[in-house]
Amino acid sequence: MNNETKKKIRLFVSSPLREGTELLLPEASSHYLCNVMRLQNGQTISCFNAVDGEFDCHIENIHKKQCRIKVEKKIRSPQPETDLWLLFAPVKKEQTDFIIEKATELGVSKIIPVITARTIVGSVRTERFAARAVEAAEQCGRISIPQIGAPLRLEEALNEWDSKRLLFFMDEKGNGVSCREAFGKAQSLSAAVLTGPEGGFSEEEANILYRKPFVRGVSLGPRILRAETAVVAALSVWQAVAGDWNPDEGEKK
Amino acid sequence: MNNETKKKIRLFVSSPLREGTELLLPEASSHYLCNVMRLQNGQTISCFNAVDGEFDCHIENIHKKQCRIKVEKKIRSPQPETDLWLLFAPVKKEQTDFIIEKATELGVSKIIPVITARTIVGSVRTERFAARAVEAAEQCGRISIPQIGAPLRLEEALNEWDSKRLLFFMDEKGNGVSCREAFGKAQSLSAAVLTGPEGGFSEEEANILYRKPFVRGVSLGPRILRAETAVVAALSVWQAVAGDWNPDEGEKK
Repeated sequence: MNNETKKKIRLFVSSPLREGTELLLPEASSHYLCNVMRLQNGQTISCFNAVDGEFDCHIENIHKKQCRIKVEKKIRSPQPETDLWLLFAPVKKEQTDFIIEKATELGVSKIIPVITARTIVGSVRTERFAARAVEAAEQCGRISIPQIGAPLRLEEALNEWDSKRLLFFMDEKGNGVSCREAFGKAQSLSAAVLTGPEGGFSEEEANILYRKPFVRGVSLGPRILRAETAVVAALSVWQAVAGDWNPDEGEKK
Repeated sequence: MNNETKKKIRLFVSSPLREGTELLLPEASSHYLCNVMRLQNGQTISCFNAVDGEFDCHIENIHKKQCRIKVEKKIRSPQPETDLWLLFAPVKKEQTDFIIEKATELGVSKIIPVITARTIVGSVRTERFAARAVEAAEQCGRISIPQIGAPLRLEEALNEWDSKRLLFFMDEKGNGVSCREAFGKAQSLSAAVLTGPEGGFSEEEANILYRKPFVRGVSLGPRILRAETAVVAALSVWQAVAGDWNPDEGEKK
């Protein structure tokens, strides 16, 4: 690949980005640019965060511990984004990593691990989730990083719930309405999708969920989807029907 | 888990299934039931294929090389299914396995690997794909197995195309219409989704695709989706808008 077709490296930078200022990157980012990507002085990368936007940045001094860059031209302003949360029951490590990556690609604003009756995963490593989300945002061209919430037991999550946010519960028993109908009817721009672990929700959990006024049961078709498939499927249909893949929604904003 | 909550084992059987007949299972299935699942004489499994349907079957003689079962009661008849094909550019082994599994869960009827300008994978192991599809169908409760087509170069696939089948091309450049609109407008019940490799389609490929009367360019939103995310996203939205997740479609049939 020549330089023309090579994709510019995108780097999430939490410190403020202002045109014309210089910045020292933290060690992890410096190591990545220096040792992994083997960049050199004078090359251009793009740095971004959701507050300041995205900027072309010039590498002034490449160094594996502390790389110095100059913030040049702003190339993108922060954008309004879909206010969509994902609540998911953690599964095995590989699938959970996958869920974080896909939720980021699919534009989720907040990810909350919820512990359900059939969740069989011990510790929930939210700092790992956060690193995964940053990587995925850098890859997919997104300007914000989804927030990672602290793990909650399902009942805690429901007790603390702000009822102005609709909670779409993926009911693998097929008792919900079709996702196109459920998402299409949602007038609220604040929503959350809840997916279960392998084996689904317990009957008691389903009963509790259906009694909450802010919960809508949703069906994802006649086949049994794996936990991670349900996440990608639900978020994709949400974005297509009610989110930022939908040009009508876009115009209303 | 006790017997009540344990999911019954589903096994794809290619030979004819008739109530009251006995059957000798092939070695791979026998090994699975005997050594992996450690089933015993007298236990019940369910066997299925798309021609005969799904049947409760009694294990008469468990044996690691040749297990004998008796076909008992029919529990499900073959069902009409969505006529949706997936044409995808193979990516790395792990992601390709994932694509086959998810396409099966999402109800695709035929999967064809297509080699595009930027496809960097050497050999395409269709017998591996077929095994993966059988496993996924057994897991997700599906009664049919998607057919795996021989790998084709993109231009071969287009030259041989039956123009009555719409080909929805996932254009990562964002030049297509929104997937909800594209899929919603499709009156044809025969369709195919085409997804590209990492790095997408070449400009020349996109030009060739857009000139075909049966091709519709589709956009999957403002972020860059990975190859395997695009597959799951496109198939999910198709099923939700035009396929078997959609109750209106269901009633029409």
